[in-house]
Amino acid sequence: MIRVGVIGYGYWGPNIVRNFSLVEGATVEVVCDRSTEMHKKIKAQWPHMNINTDSDEVITSPDIDLVAIVTPVSTHFSLAKQALLNGKHVFVEKPMTATVEESEELVELAEQKGLTLMVDHTFMFTGAVRKMKEVIEERLLGDIYYYDSTRINLGIFQHDINVIWDLAPHDFSILSYLIDEKPLSVSASGVSHVGTREDVAYIHVHFSNSFIAHFNVNWLSPVKVRNTLVGGEKRMLLWDDMMADEKIRIYDKGVEVKQREGMYDLLVSYRAGDMWAPRIEQTEALRYECRYCIKCIENNTRPINDGLNGLYVVRLLNACDESLKIGGGAVDVK
Amino acid sequence: MIRVGVIGYGYWGPNIVRNFSLVEGATVEVVCDRSTEMHKKIKAQWPHMNINTDSDEVITSPDIDLVAIVTPVSTHFSLAKQALLNGKHVFVEKPMTATVEESEELVELAEQKGLTLMVDHTFMFTGAVRKMKEVIEERLLGDIYYYDSTRINLGIFQHDINVIWDLAPHDFSILSYLIDEKPLSVSASGVSHVGTREDVAYIHVHFSNSFIAHFNVNWLSPVKVRNTLVGGEKRMLLWDDMMADEKIRIYDKGVEVKQREGMYDLLVSYRAGDMWAPRIEQTEALRYECRYCIKCIENNTRPINDGLNGLYVVRLLNACDESLKIGGGAVDVK
Amino acid sequence: MIRVGVIGYGYWGPNIVRNFSLVEGATVEVVCDRSTEMHKKIKAQWPHMNINTDSDEVITSPDIDLVAIVTPVSTHFSLAKQALLNGKHVFVEKPMTATVEESEELVELAEQKGLTLMVDHTFMFTGAVRKMKEVIEERLLGDIYYYDSTRINLGIFQHDINVIWDLAPHDFSILSYLIDEKPLSVSASGVSHVGTREDVAYIHVHFSNSFIAHFNVNWLSPVKVRNTLVGGEKRMLLWDDMMADEKIRIYDKGVEVKQREGMYDLLVSYRAGDMWAPRIEQTEALRYECRYCIKCIENNTRPINDGLNGLYVVRLLNACDESLKIGGGAVDVK
Amino acid sequence: MIRVGVIGYGYWGPNIVRNFSLVEGATVEVVCDRSTEMHKKIKAQWPHMNINTDSDEVITSPDIDLVAIVTPVSTHFSLAKQALLNGKHVFVEKPMTATVEESEELVELAEQKGLTLMVDHTFMFTGAVRKMKEVIEERLLGDIYYYDSTRINLGIFQHDINVIWDLAPHDFSILSYLIDEKPLSVSASGVSHVGTREDVAYIHVHFSNSFIAHFNVNWLSPVKVRNTLVGGEKRMLLWDDMMADEKIRIYDKGVEVKQREGMYDLLVSYRAGDMWAPRIEQTEALRYECRYCIKCIENNTRPINDGLNGLYVVRLLNACDESLKIGGGAVDVK
Repeated sequence: MIRVGVIGYGYWGPNIVRNFSLVEGATVEVVCDRSTEMHKKIKAQWPHMNINTDSDEVITSPDIDLVAIVTPVSTHFSLAKQALLNGKHVFVEKPMTATVEESEELVELAEQKGLTLMVDHTFMFTGAVRKMKEVIEERLLGDIYYYDSTRINLGIFQHDINVIWDLAPHDFSILSYLIDEKPLSVSASGVSHVGTREDVAYIHVHFSNSFIAHFNVNWLSPVKVRNTLVGGEKRMLLWDDMMADEKIRIYDKGVEVKQREGMYDLLVSYRAGDMWAPRIEQTEALRYECRYCIKCIENNTRPINDGLNGLYVVRLLNACDESLKIGGGAVDVK
Repeated sequence: MIRVGVIGYGYWGPNIVRNFSLVEGATVEVVCDRSTEMHKKIKAQWPHMNINTDSDEVITSPDIDLVAIVTPVSTHFSLAKQALLNGKHVFVEKPMTATVEESEELVELAEQKGLTLMVDHTFMFTGAVRKMKEVIEERLLGDIYYYDSTRINLGIFQHDINVIWDLAPHDFSILSYLIDEKPLSVSASGVSHVGTREDVAYIHVHFSNSFIAHFNVNWLSPVKVRNTLVGGEKRMLLWDDMMADEKIRIYDKGVEVKQREGMYDLLVSYRAGDMWAPRIEQTEALRYECRYCIKCIENNTRPINDGLNGLYVVRLLNACDESLKIGGGAVDVK
Repeated sequence: MIRVGVIGYGYWGPNIVRNFSLVEGATVEVVCDRSTEMHKKIKAQWPHMNINTDSDEVITSPDIDLVAIVTPVSTHFSLAKQALLNGKHVFVEKPMTATVEESEELVELAEQKGLTLMVDHTFMFTGAVRKMKEVIEERLLGDIYYYDSTRINLGIFQHDINVIWDLAPHDFSILSYLIDEKPLSVSASGVSHVGTREDVAYIHVHFSNSFIAHFNVNWLSPVKVRNTLVGGEKRMLLWDDMMADEKIRIYDKGVEVKQREGMYDLLVSYRAGDMWAPRIEQTEALRYECRYCIKCIENNTRPINDGLNGLYVVRLLNACDESLKIGGGAVDVK
Repeated sequence: MIRVGVIGYGYWGPNIVRNFSLVEGATVEVVCDRSTEMHKKIKAQWPHMNINTDSDEVITSPDIDLVAIVTPVSTHFSLAKQALLNGKHVFVEKPMTATVEESEELVELAEQKGLTLMVDHTFMFTGAVRKMKEVIEERLLGDIYYYDSTRINLGIFQHDINVIWDLAPHDFSILSYLIDEKPLSVSASGVSHVGTREDVAYIHVHFSNSFIAHFNVNWLSPVKVRNTLVGGEKRMLLWDDMMADEKIRIYDKGVEVKQREGMYDLLVSYRAGDMWAPRIEQTEALRYECRYCIKCIENNTRPINDGLNGLYVVRLLNACDESLKIGGGAVDVK
């Protein structure tokens, strides 16, 4: 039985407590929040829960195996580092840390200590993304041409970070999961209208081949859109996460091009075939992810959303910020 | 009565002939196409029409007042120049020319000769765009925050130009019509998968203030999307051109931000109000535009889609090409 | 403080307990369920709640002012009757009873005793229906022509009643709320494919004028539809309850007809105007309804969803059953 | 070469002339319309066409093999009868005649004379309906449970008939094509608000088994809907004719029911599987139908939309009218 200590009971914390409480092989031993206001909420929901105010107590407790860090980004690094140093496995909210260097340090530390470091990239565990992974691995799309995501709505959810750091971690972690190729460079353009941080931004991620990824993130859209197009050589896919059913549609559509013999121009023909919407598993993604976390610890296997995956996302976020500073030029991603 | 000579009877030519034939104050005197195959089509539709093969005859004919040029881009400049030199008014397909210099020369020549030079930016004359113009001029949106357009479908319609030169002229002309501010710089990213020209591209247009325009153009999308979001300080607008009705939706939604006294963070509040879809006039845009062209010639007034407007669009297209070459960096637009 | 005793903790009971617990002026004193399995669930959620197995204890307790009956339809009558006889106010699930006679008896009894009898027609308290009421009362639609509802999905939720008794109470109570006119007769057609009770049915309700109401209820539809069209002389309204936003759309569309002087035929003209989606209040309908129930008891005012309203719905349901038996012929509704 | 004479050049006539002109094996010899206003329109489109005013000339001409009757319903019978008596094949608009007796007489006459009598039930020839036929014949849906059609919009297209005679022939002919079972009885409810004929109506068609068909036709809807649900034992189908693509969707969804041993209640389980939208052929339905008509005449084969099919539709329309008169009761269909 993995004994979990949860630090932070704000917006997302209650979901973490609920899911680690419910999955097999885990038990939530303690929930920590600095605000005693929050303690009342915890008590109302979990009358018998141990509650405290001091994260150090959680981190150093001999009764805790896994520390779940559900606090603002700026605090992730020091909490995670201390937890690892104290021999605890770590489950930390996205993005993993506020800088690339911090992420690198955590990855190394977890490696040295042989501990599990897992970043809460929840979307990787949705039925829709797992189905997309399956479809891409089965080569149903053939070579991938582009990945084009629109994640826009009305709502500034985070005050200490810009719209890229708020919304793009979802997309970057999904991208990392679906596409094996590593990015070469990133360019980002954004503006701020409300407050001082970018609230509308557009990102391109470039690769060594002709594959391109594009992300449209926006806190000032009157309509909520969660659309991702994945264009492939053989088929094309639309993921519309706002649909109740049929979130994934696979189109047997495409273009075929032939060079005409001895001629300069091209013969282009279109293929219009069936559309197919595979059934998507409905399990709550976070439930699936928490169970997976416990299994990775039990079996000492490396999670797909490990520290390196968290580092990948932070590298891209950091490159976006640098590109914004230089007016949208391409910034290398190591 | 303005006597029109039409050069080119390919994809768009029949619409030009039909509309100039039907509008008040105009008559189509001759249709010219190099291909005798096309002559049969013209005859089938217009049994009494004068038809010829030589564009020079049209351009130099004393019986022609207005030359309509509906040929590939590369031929626009020389045809338009000759027509102006021969004292004819000119109506030319978009984009106006293949280079900035050519457009500048045509603008100057039309000015010198006191002739009307009009570019067929048809979208400026749709009921939807005219309604958007009205809404923006009445300040219903307040200050404009961003303009975000997605124009994607499956279909390579042009073999001699890339997806930007094919699709973005629509968006750039609409942008020029709706937004008074002139662009400072452009950045574009694109890749090609089919053939050698870009078939997927993303464009940002930067302005001197925090307004930003973004364009997503794509020939390889399984779904056809024609969406434009215009975010404003007071209200927000969605133009979905694929809708049969209610193409324009105006959302009384927005964000209000206050700096809290003596504090660092922001108080953000959201406003969620009614949505309103104004009735859109259904007249065919090209009909409206052709009638407008004739009126501009009759009254010697400058059209909104004059040579300068055509030049604006070509400047942006040209800046996109330059940005593509340097890997997406910002390119100044004079 | 109104002290509530809740009988039944099945599908809907938890919502009743939660809402009466949270609204001002009420407190849930006891929850009763025959199944001790359910007692565990109640305890998990409400650790300090009084729980019992015997509904009689609730009904006769001097500590209870209002009995909320959340049990199968067949038990409503006897529980509600006993509660009223014991001087308790009654809040009962829809449909109020299994027969017209039972409903009549409850109405009379509540009247005699001066007690509040309220039926849980939750939909009457949704933001969408309250907005529709407002729109109709302000005569924005003019005279109402028709009311056409489609309420279909995959799912047999009730085993002891047919699809009409399951789904139509929602529609009948909304109809009663929106339309003052009383129905004359009902005709219903239905068939059963799965089990022995109708799983697909169509209902017409006829009135003394040319207004007509039509209901399409279906447990075997692959898509979930919750659409209601209200056609009026001046405007028309569409309520699409599956939309996250803009559930109500009001169309300024209509038909105008003139008899041509001295002629037999009609001049028909169409009006196509704006569409308008008013903001809908988002409060949970049941919360609103529970608070309203308490206020009605406190102020001794008659609720809109009183016993007579419950009786109206049961009369229509009963007429549907009779019409089904005679093959779809019209059955009078007293 | 089948020589066609077309009588009537109103709303639909131009499509008939165009399609019989274009299909292989046919030529339009003459177009007849009583209005000389229409003659101008014919001339504009077909400069070399023979035009006349007298339908008798067409019907008796030795140069005509097939008479296409595209006139108001009330004139169909006498024109078709005369044409058959004169040894002409007949292609007649829907509905075939204004009464059952007239239809019966035409069927018999065509039979005696060995002539082709074909009714223009165009929808039977759309790609969508042909695909549905295929899907049903391949037993992909299993046994059919219900057929539920909604065909509503704003627009009174016909002044001499009610909404049922205007819109339901489409649905009845499709029903006859897809479902082999013959109807037992029909019940219809309708009201009129504008003019004196029903503008809103609902129809049920009953069969000897538990299959039911339901039709919602309405001239006063603010939104245009063209939806048909076909529920089956194994799969379910939605035909949304307003979609540009994916008009047909097949849902691998359903219900399974088991009687629990020795128990009264049912075990119901749901199956939620993939959705599949087959590619639909895009050929113009009327083109396909005209070519089919010519082939039937050439090969002397009986069309699927023969006189008996036309009679089926008229029988149902007639039964609807009778049911309307008796207040919605079931009326037998012989």
